[in-house]
Amino acid sequence: MEESKMASKIAVLGLGSMGFGMARSMTRAGLDVSGYDVAPAAVERFVAEGGHGAGSPGEAVKGADIVVSVVVSGAQTEAVLFGPDGVAGAMKPGAVLVSSATMDPSIARDLAKRIESLGLHYLDAPISGGAAKAATGELTIMASGPPQAFAAARPALDCMAAKVYELGEAAGIGAAFKMINQLLAGVHIAAACEAIAFAAKQGLDLDKVYEVITASAGNSWMFQNRIPHVLAGDYTPLSAVEIFVKDLGIVQDMARAERYPVPLVAAALQMYLAASGAGMGRDDDSTLARLYAQLSGAQLPGKDKP
Amino acid sequence: MEESKMASKIAVLGLGSMGFGMARSMTRAGLDVSGYDVAPAAVERFVAEGGHGAGSPGEAVKGADIVVSVVVSGAQTEAVLFGPDGVAGAMKPGAVLVSSATMDPSIARDLAKRIESLGLHYLDAPISGGAAKAATGELTIMASGPPQAFAAARPALDCMAAKVYELGEAAGIGAAFKMINQLLAGVHIAAACEAIAFAAKQGLDLDKVYEVITASAGNSWMFQNRIPHVLAGDYTPLSAVEIFVKDLGIVQDMARAERYPVPLVAAALQMYLAASGAGMGRDDDSTLARLYAQLSGAQLPGKDKP
Repeated sequence: MEESKMASKIAVLGLGSMGFGMARSMTRAGLDVSGYDVAPAAVERFVAEGGHGAGSPGEAVKGADIVVSVVVSGAQTEAVLFGPDGVAGAMKPGAVLVSSATMDPSIARDLAKRIESLGLHYLDAPISGGAAKAATGELTIMASGPPQAFAAARPALDCMAAKVYELGEAAGIGAAFKMINQLLAGVHIAAACEAIAFAAKQGLDLDKVYEVITASAGNSWMFQNRIPHVLAGDYTPLSAVEIFVKDLGIVQDMARAERYPVPLVAAALQMYLAASGAGMGRDDDSTLARLYAQLSGAQLPGKDKP
Repeated sequence: MEESKMASKIAVLGLGSMGFGMARSMTRAGLDVSGYDVAPAAVERFVAEGGHGAGSPGEAVKGADIVVSVVVSGAQTEAVLFGPDGVAGAMKPGAVLVSSATMDPSIARDLAKRIESLGLHYLDAPISGGAAKAATGELTIMASGPPQAFAAARPALDCMAAKVYELGEAAGIGAAFKMINQLLAGVHIAAACEAIAFAAKQGLDLDKVYEVITASAGNSWMFQNRIPHVLAGDYTPLSAVEIFVKDLGIVQDMARAERYPVPLVAAALQMYLAASGAGMGRDDDSTLARLYAQLSGAQLPGKDKP
């Protein structure tokens, strides 16, 4: 049993900050991992770290028992599977597709149906935890799928995640959980930035605000995680504004389709859009604090300070 | 020194859920506390618990070294101090007014100036922690004021609070910190309710949503604290909708006056107003989840469930 796990052949499609860390976690655990990315430099980096580089998605998935797709969106996942040079038809019979991009649950349900019709398994497996947890193999995976899909994916899941939530048998459940998390995370970042720049506008000691709020009922995981970037005046992107332009956009589209009102998501999305439109799209999402400061004359720490 | 502390005479104005707990914490610690409330039943309850009941605010503050004002708003605080039968002129020379109502910092600055002009001390001392922490003497107090005001108030602060933040010498700083906390708390409750009812609309297992979110980046202190009320279908008010109608209203007014945009606060406030307008104003603030459910046909746990 242990031997058959070690013999698993894995393909990782997408070697960005998340996919690279996930692929590395598996090679480090002794799995045979072939990685592909549209950016040749990303493939070279993976090869330098001991992985196998693939020249095409098709080459990566050839003979793989587990294919982990870590592209940016549902549309990209569909393209990599069913577009020109799509790999779905080239996957080994009985292999499992571990689909980790954040997407509308309806897309996950559609992809699962099409993958399963080819005699393959589909695991709806969005990820949470950021690049740091990806690198250490300590992601949280919010997964749903039939037991066979979980069983087939297990060797990869064990290497990539500290915690795998098994949320149900139907595709789309994992995706829906991820979107609930993104709804909250996206609103909380915007609220944290609205609050800290408002504190700055009033001339409060921002380090003290951080100390008090993180010990009070106003705290959130995101306030605690992101506001140190604002206090340091360092907007190097750990997670960029464009991620939440995308993810709150998905939430808003889902909610509109379901006739569900999301006034907080809508307000937050407008701030991410404004930041992106103002040229901050590739900055760390905590740059929303700078946007609030620019709109109000508040003074934040960092190089914008007089 | 210890003896002089024990000899402090205290007045508590306002024996609601917060004021009653604070007054009780001080009597339990052996302080001599006289309590007043506009509702005679509240005074009787305090007497039954071993406090001194006062028939008027003036009677309560007579000879008191420390007057703790725990009314609902800045306007009520002003009325109790300077309105008809206001107690400011009746306070003992050198006594300290501990002002704990949540209010616009500009009101706190104005009240401090007027109190200090009478030869009294003013401590801007908003409280956080809810009725449970008030009852056990474990509040968080976000305080600002001159060293003499802190020194004079110390015996009371020591009995009421687990943590006293000393945030500066000027009145208004404590109030401003409290408003930053309320901004975040109010937005987070609305976001939590928007998220959990959206999860219900999608038919997700809500207990599982709670488990996953509280372990993920989407978590907030308020999500963790309030969503159990929704899961239990129990909207008995621990903190009512009207509190955030008031507090986000203060934040919005402050922000408007300072020309600072607060789109998330504005969106959240509309939901509290809608809940209040729909007759839920005295329910627990987590009832916002019911409002979202009513607006969308989502099914939440509890008696509304078919």
